[in-house]
Amino acid sequence: MPREAETHADIPFGPEDTPWQKTFSGLRVGGGRPYGTPPSLDPRTAYTSVPEVPHHKVQLPPTGLDADQYTEAEALFRRHIDTQTRNFAGYQVTSALDYEQRLGHYLNRHLNNVGDPYQSSSYTLNSKVLERAVLDYFASLWHAKWPHNPQDPESYWGYVLTMGASEGNLYGLWNARDYLSGKPLRTHHRTPGDRAVEQAPHGEGPHAFHPVAFFSEDTHYSLTKAVRALDIDTFHALGSTRYPDDNPLAPGTPWPREVPSTEDGAIDVEQLAVLVRFFARRGHPILLSLNYGSTFKGAYDDIEAVAATVRGICAEHGLDHRRVHRGQDGDHDERSGFWLHVDGALGAGYVPYLEMARDAGLVEQAPPAFDFRLGDLHSLTMSGHKWMGTPWACGVFMTRTGLQMAPPRASEYIGAADTTFAGSRNGFSSLLMWDYLARHSYDDQARLAAECDGLAAYAHAQLLALQDQLDQDLWVARSPQSLTVRFRRPHADIVRRYSLSSETVHVDGVARTYVHLYAMRHLTRQRVDELIGELRQPGAFA
Amino acid sequence: MPREAETHADIPFGPEDTPWQKTFSGLRVGGGRPYGTPPSLDPRTAYTSVPEVPHHKVQLPPTGLDADQYTEAEALFRRHIDTQTRNFAGYQVTSALDYEQRLGHYLNRHLNNVGDPYQSSSYTLNSKVLERAVLDYFASLWHAKWPHNPQDPESYWGYVLTMGASEGNLYGLWNARDYLSGKPLRTHHRTPGDRAVEQAPHGEGPHAFHPVAFFSEDTHYSLTKAVRALDIDTFHALGSTRYPDDNPLAPGTPWPREVPSTEDGAIDVEQLAVLVRFFARRGHPILLSLNYGSTFKGAYDDIEAVAATVRGICAEHGLDHRRVHRGQDGDHDERSGFWLHVDGALGAGYVPYLEMARDAGLVEQAPPAFDFRLGDLHSLTMSGHKWMGTPWACGVFMTRTGLQMAPPRASEYIGAADTTFAGSRNGFSSLLMWDYLARHSYDDQARLAAECDGLAAYAHAQLLALQDQLDQDLWVARSPQSLTVRFRRPHADIVRRYSLSSETVHVDGVARTYVHLYAMRHLTRQRVDELIGELRQPGAFA
Repeated sequence: MPREAETHADIPFGPEDTPWQKTFSGLRVGGGRPYGTPPSLDPRTAYTSVPEVPHHKVQLPPTGLDADQYTEAEALFRRHIDTQTRNFAGYQVTSALDYEQRLGHYLNRHLNNVGDPYQSSSYTLNSKVLERAVLDYFASLWHAKWPHNPQDPESYWGYVLTMGASEGNLYGLWNARDYLSGKPLRTHHRTPGDRAVEQAPHGEGPHAFHPVAFFSEDTHYSLTKAVRALDIDTFHALGSTRYPDDNPLAPGTPWPREVPSTEDGAIDVEQLAVLVRFFARRGHPILLSLNYGSTFKGAYDDIEAVAATVRGICAEHGLDHRRVHRGQDGDHDERSGFWLHVDGALGAGYVPYLEMARDAGLVEQAPPAFDFRLGDLHSLTMSGHKWMGTPWACGVFMTRTGLQMAPPRASEYIGAADTTFAGSRNGFSSLLMWDYLARHSYDDQARLAAECDGLAAYAHAQLLALQDQLDQDLWVARSPQSLTVRFRRPHADIVRRYSLSSETVHVDGVARTYVHLYAMRHLTRQRVDELIGELRQPGAFA
Repeated sequence: MPREAETHADIPFGPEDTPWQKTFSGLRVGGGRPYGTPPSLDPRTAYTSVPEVPHHKVQLPPTGLDADQYTEAEALFRRHIDTQTRNFAGYQVTSALDYEQRLGHYLNRHLNNVGDPYQSSSYTLNSKVLERAVLDYFASLWHAKWPHNPQDPESYWGYVLTMGASEGNLYGLWNARDYLSGKPLRTHHRTPGDRAVEQAPHGEGPHAFHPVAFFSEDTHYSLTKAVRALDIDTFHALGSTRYPDDNPLAPGTPWPREVPSTEDGAIDVEQLAVLVRFFARRGHPILLSLNYGSTFKGAYDDIEAVAATVRGICAEHGLDHRRVHRGQDGDHDERSGFWLHVDGALGAGYVPYLEMARDAGLVEQAPPAFDFRLGDLHSLTMSGHKWMGTPWACGVFMTRTGLQMAPPRASEYIGAADTTFAGSRNGFSSLLMWDYLARHSYDDQARLAAECDGLAAYAHAQLLALQDQLDQDLWVARSPQSLTVRFRRPHADIVRRYSLSSETVHVDGVARTYVHLYAMRHLTRQRVDELIGELRQPGAFA
């Protein structure tokens, strides 16, 4: 044992290949023993390697790195990221960013927007004043009633996200779960008290407060995780366990995991209606999460059609205007029996400008409406790093004030209500979005939207031409008004160099692995031509 | 109606007080109508004002801001934040930061560590190679087995957080909930499959997979939110609804909401034992969340004592080594019937260096051990912005590989397992932590820890002296080895200028509102003296 431990403590560590136990100096050696545990394996072989940034160059010994070692390590990392940024083409993320000069100062400040955006906080190092400007901007753009007004249930409420749209989806679904489960509303119980929470709501039928979730097979993988974390039943889970033989889409066969989509990637409204009706008839409230710009195909669900269909089904089964009673004193509120959440990670940031471009005659078409013009929209989320472009993920969550649930309890410590998902919230993100919006007018954005739409069409046309030229089916496709074009996965080298993401789809029972490119603002025709040049080489699709 | 709408559209907007509907230019006016909704109230009066940054200066009109307007608005905000940073004293956040010069470049790059840190991703714009170095650093510091090795259940697994320790708490409690509920482990089911999840586990007794959560009254408010989001029963909720008259701490009286603490703010181990025994006897698995550096009093729970006590109680009731069976084929794993999570937001980042300082004779004492030296520690979280200091909240979550739950499903799209909480993860945070650790040796950190400990003692002594001098009880107190000193809340001006946070505590039935200061790295004796000078003025405690 001591022998083995010695061996481990001698594992070479850090940029100079120093035996691990020699990477300590004076102070931290208590009685000749290094502080902490030695490695039990060599991390250089245990971990995935990034050829451009050898792991030992960035390892962190107890002595830290000296100036030369730091400089070398950081330079290797920087060169690698700069190269990958130049060729980046495969995700719905904008990589042409310009913040360093104006906002570098704030890397030496800590900004934390802890708590509700509309309440000042004793934590004064926050950017909430900018956050409110950003939120009002999107409220107007998305046709919500603004400014936020706690007295007006129709006015919007929202906040800037720290994790990106996956946080918005989590928060939206959590709110939806508690709303449909009959938990107390914020407006109804202005003083949040756990007592109210504990009094069970009264409702009609055994499933009146047991929501069931629906989302399509083209939905982002984070939704599967969200329903699991939040312990929300999906129609698949409930169907498979309680009604195993009654799948209404094909009786006797297993329930589908998600709602089927069309080939373009939009939710199949008719099949959704069949599934929703099955559960609405049994008295379950309905939780829908729709896509506006789906992750892989960039498809837009027809939100208006879904809303009208589901509203109709809910009305048939007494799930439209529900009274939620609480306690014995007639205390109640009225709320709907369904919740419609929209994951607009890319689309909610992009399509409003495409609409403007269409109205100005710059493009021919824009996707159907998705925003607060639809009376049935309950919550909406968007990513900041997708259309706008920011150095890390961020975004916006928005709902109507009347749909907010009572927060857990007042947080005296931070001096603001604890209405958001995270505790600490990244205040630099609001600053980034504020900076971008201050420097890009609607005009600029509409022109950029038209350009990106044109570039996607160009990439689509070039890939179709390549397909003809190679006389090989490359499965080239672009869903309507989508910023992405998908095609057969090429050689792994090309996939890595252009950061192309993959997805396997079964078409007529055969597995097809696709990649896609995204025509984001940083992409150029020249870069598309280069990629297509590489795809034309022999072996590119071997 | 049109009249009112006109009025709203005329609400003055932006830095030049332009009527809202005139803030548009050419392109975006479709048929003469501005895009979006006009304000329904004037946000300047609807929202909390920050006197130093008037809201209209930062409002975002559809035209954006011109260069002069931008410069003025950003300068107002910068001046305000710089002033508040200079006086910042009231939170466990380090505000002396130095990243701009070295890392400004990355404000023009997008870094996203989506998915598992140990798996490369087709999303190549990531800093996972640095993240792994940071995680190994903390694994060694916290006496865990490292590097991470998927084949070795005793090796650590972790990731860098995007939201700070409140994400770590959420993730830890989610993992704990599913572990104690008998869901499939990652190691046991290497191929995540929802089928396994749906097969109910078999166990002993009706409550064998119904965990109950315990945390003290000094716990961060985000824990209350976490158990609500994750739908975990607390001992209070379960006790109040199922056993309303049986509160074992005082039969016939209402159950306490949280586990009582000592006056210093540490969890009361004896009372905890009584509560845990009540539920262990009824077969419930036990979920504990402890504090290592509680938010307000900076107190350290005696984690080793709690672990030994709870382990003993669990063993008495068959909750130590549990076999979790699944399906009919004898498939099972063995796991414990309790989970011990530690919220070490500040303490886990600070105390290891204080221990080194103690071993080197720089300070006399350090708090009891909290880390993976304790065999019963299941998960641990720490904030990056607290001890180290970063421009936004971040942190580390760490557990043992054998305790990971099977992730929802493989995420081909990102090319890495979806093992973390968020989808997108802030890759700049790993870079910041890597930078800090590369530039601060154990030596540096131990000296800083000793200095901060000394500064807290100094502030404590000065406040006690002030109390004597004023001949007024200022309730001055410092919990053992805590970095914070608490005292009676002074005048609101002082509270705001120094960003002092408040907390109301009931002492002998009387409400006392405290504030505290935190002796973080940026605080100096001079600044403490200035604050005390202000507290000495007449009216400071009026």
